[in-house]
Amino acid sequence: MSPQAQPTPVELYDTTLRDGAQAEGLSLSVEDKLKVARQLDRLGVHYIEGGWPGSNPRDREFFAAVPGLGLKQAQVVAFGSTHHANTSAENDANLAELLSAQTQTVTIVGKSWLRHVTTQLGIPPQRNLEMIRDSVAFLKARERQVYFDAEHFFDGMKEDPEYALTCLAAAAEGGARGLVLCDTNGGSLPWQVAERVAVVKERHPGLVIGIHCHNDGELAVANSLAGVEAGVRQVQGTLCGFGERCGNANLCSIIPTLQFKMGFHCLDEERMKLLTETARLVYELANLPPQRFAPYVGQSAFSHKGGLHISAVEKDPALYEHLPPELVGNQRRYLVSDLAGKAAILQRARQFGLELSPEDPEVQAILQELKAREGEGYQYEGAEASFELLMNRAMGHRHRYFDLVGFRVMDFKAAEGELPLAEATVRVRVGGMEEHTAATGHGPVNALDRALRKALSRFFPRLAEVRLVDYKVRVLAGADGTASQVRVLIESSDGVSRWGTVGVSFDVLEASWQALGDSIRYKLFKDKQL
Amino acid sequence: MSPQAQPTPVELYDTTLRDGAQAEGLSLSVEDKLKVARQLDRLGVHYIEGGWPGSNPRDREFFAAVPGLGLKQAQVVAFGSTHHANTSAENDANLAELLSAQTQTVTIVGKSWLRHVTTQLGIPPQRNLEMIRDSVAFLKARERQVYFDAEHFFDGMKEDPEYALTCLAAAAEGGARGLVLCDTNGGSLPWQVAERVAVVKERHPGLVIGIHCHNDGELAVANSLAGVEAGVRQVQGTLCGFGERCGNANLCSIIPTLQFKMGFHCLDEERMKLLTETARLVYELANLPPQRFAPYVGQSAFSHKGGLHISAVEKDPALYEHLPPELVGNQRRYLVSDLAGKAAILQRARQFGLELSPEDPEVQAILQELKAREGEGYQYEGAEASFELLMNRAMGHRHRYFDLVGFRVMDFKAAEGELPLAEATVRVRVGGMEEHTAATGHGPVNALDRALRKALSRFFPRLAEVRLVDYKVRVLAGADGTASQVRVLIESSDGVSRWGTVGVSFDVLEASWQALGDSIRYKLFKDKQL
Repeated sequence: MSPQAQPTPVELYDTTLRDGAQAEGLSLSVEDKLKVARQLDRLGVHYIEGGWPGSNPRDREFFAAVPGLGLKQAQVVAFGSTHHANTSAENDANLAELLSAQTQTVTIVGKSWLRHVTTQLGIPPQRNLEMIRDSVAFLKARERQVYFDAEHFFDGMKEDPEYALTCLAAAAEGGARGLVLCDTNGGSLPWQVAERVAVVKERHPGLVIGIHCHNDGELAVANSLAGVEAGVRQVQGTLCGFGERCGNANLCSIIPTLQFKMGFHCLDEERMKLLTETARLVYELANLPPQRFAPYVGQSAFSHKGGLHISAVEKDPALYEHLPPELVGNQRRYLVSDLAGKAAILQRARQFGLELSPEDPEVQAILQELKAREGEGYQYEGAEASFELLMNRAMGHRHRYFDLVGFRVMDFKAAEGELPLAEATVRVRVGGMEEHTAATGHGPVNALDRALRKALSRFFPRLAEVRLVDYKVRVLAGADGTASQVRVLIESSDGVSRWGTVGVSFDVLEASWQALGDSIRYKLFKDKQL
Repeated sequence: MSPQAQPTPVELYDTTLRDGAQAEGLSLSVEDKLKVARQLDRLGVHYIEGGWPGSNPRDREFFAAVPGLGLKQAQVVAFGSTHHANTSAENDANLAELLSAQTQTVTIVGKSWLRHVTTQLGIPPQRNLEMIRDSVAFLKARERQVYFDAEHFFDGMKEDPEYALTCLAAAAEGGARGLVLCDTNGGSLPWQVAERVAVVKERHPGLVIGIHCHNDGELAVANSLAGVEAGVRQVQGTLCGFGERCGNANLCSIIPTLQFKMGFHCLDEERMKLLTETARLVYELANLPPQRFAPYVGQSAFSHKGGLHISAVEKDPALYEHLPPELVGNQRRYLVSDLAGKAAILQRARQFGLELSPEDPEVQAILQELKAREGEGYQYEGAEASFELLMNRAMGHRHRYFDLVGFRVMDFKAAEGELPLAEATVRVRVGGMEEHTAATGHGPVNALDRALRKALSRFFPRLAEVRLVDYKVRVLAGADGTASQVRVLIESSDGVSRWGTVGVSFDVLEASWQALGDSIRYKLFKDKQL
């Protein structure tokens, strides 16, 4: 499809907070969910499915807080199912909960695969049709805009197409604004989706046709796009593709493809630039490591490693990039590695405001130092502050501020059931003075951290601003069990900026000691620069 | 496409060891690469691209070791590029290296996008055609079967289709057996791929047409499948989709879809069952956490969480599974979580050989214990041994064997530049006897580990068989920095089986202490069961 003069709009319907929250290992508090909703509104999606008030008390809490959010762009949607088989819409507790969420738009899911009706619900096919029609009509009569999610629609179409289509007709009869075709098991192929969407489109020319795909065949994005090509005008998906089993359709990939490659309109151009930070926010709130390789928004998505690729990209980025990373708020990275060589060093130096040319001997010195460090297991992805300190060191700019002399850590658990008690003593030298002090802590790393800050803040009071926001430990070589090398990554913040530092040792406390030292040194270095 | 009586074969060409190795953070030793090759051969792929002997000394080492592997099914392929512009095929060092790899089949990559020829190489378009033709002919004359990778073919077709097609014609003229169409920047859409493949297929009916996709639009799998639909008969990809930027086409998703959903033949049915273990092997060798949400082979791919889904799957797995997990060697899992409830517990119990019925009071006891533990941050995915011990405990089967009384760990770094010295003392009780002993180690966790084994192996000599094969630390709540809760996961092996155990504390040593205790206890429990 070629870009059009006036691009056709596609509605974005985000279900990160409802279907996405089913992902294994993803757990969001009500406060987290509100943060995600605020960010989705900034991004400019049209609908935010907030949860299932009828099934989950936390979701009810969320909906109660929504009016206070002051959203400007997005509508928050409450989700529920058709009424229970042994009652009526009027007497169904779930539908009542759905109304009490007080949203303008509601989405209800119902069966459209005959096998589900007979096997899982165990009711006559006709009863399911009544449940769909009556539930939609009930909500519609109460001034709600209603979308109908046809669960397992594509599987239904494979086994009994007439029944699947009759379910949609029942929803249309009830007054639904849109029919959402779900590939619930995630096993459909793009051409099957396209063909079945076309059938629905023909039968319901006046309704919004939506699509809701799962990724069990690694085709959720392709299936969603094939749906849009065939006439779908609402795409349901989640940020980063979070969702149960293999996840939902990934809106972070679908949105830019629809807009930049297929000529549809999803978001204003300025808002599109929020895509990368939006994706990363979810990982941060969920306390999960971001998916490095994610298309468009991943840290590696525009990273270049081989020297040949880097030199080509320096000439013309399109030679190895399908799209300018700025469009989605991401950035080009040259990987700091002996493979990448000088171009990567120069690019980093520019980022740090250091002007270097390829001939400068410092570049060679940095490369050598870097190679030696990488050989020991250091890694500067995520520890850019340590890398900046390394570059400055290799260039002969000494900003030591202090020396870490030594430590002694003691961790003692007296008896079963008792909590262990950790104590650290540290010796540091600042100028000519040595400071020797001690602290206890929640575990040995925390004790070490507290003792170190205590020792140094006498000399550098601004260290009081620094907070550790993340602490990560990675075991490097699996084969040696507890004797392996460990890498500690620390992320610090002083309320203004965030920075990452790294330490490596076979000893987790020594590695933490290094990373803590770098964190503090970087704070001092940064403040002096200002 | 419907299944056929005699399925059309598709050649599988794995490039995990060459293009996959470009993935950020993936690092494989020569020994690792040989292990992957052996496993790919067991799996039954047709070609294993082993590396680029001309660009990398480690790859030369790999090829030297290949004949010793005794592969039964797969051919190992050496990879290189067309000869350099300022020399001839006869005098090109890279092509000479390619020959010295001594493989029956070689693949060479060349430019097919005019913009690359003029911008990156800076040579006349005609010269590139000669380089392609002469390089292929040179190798062919030396009895090699040659595949030509047409770099950026799809982008080339967009900008200057005639030139792109002429590049393919040059390779055909040189005597290539196959033409591999590369979506190097990974930005193509499935219908574009299909259309362009059809053009090539028509021009070269006698050659094998291959496809090599990248995942920058999250469409590498869909593009590969669209290619096969349009006539491609060789699919290049990597295990788990490893590769630079967003990765290569994921063979673990492509293979089962081609075979089970599109009616092509890729692997014998028995070999298909090795797919999951093959995928996990790569993560293990690379010491990376496996991608939980990966289609077909991921740990979550057939995991069910909500109670409604679990009860439906118990009636008929097809209700929420697009394919039986056994076909690809994966398995169904009910997530151990208060959401999942009794059905999950019963399924686990069956796995452990415990017969429970939903009415048994033990099931309630296990659920309660589990809920309490999960609330504290325990997680039993990857720590099934700890979970089995928990179930047995909750059922009143006491297998304590020993009590961990207490420990004292000391870690001391005397001066800058010195290595820290760690020492642990432990107190354990076995029967009525208390053992109090000490050990030093590489870091505090290792010291604790050694002291604990020393104390217990007096009583349980078979503990000498146990080795820790992995040690992982995860910080639970990022917000408290070094005072956060940490979860330690330990994987142990006694040469016969492997098991995982878990510990949680704000103190990394205490958490390790718990996980080590469970590891040893499980070994004793397991041996008694036999």
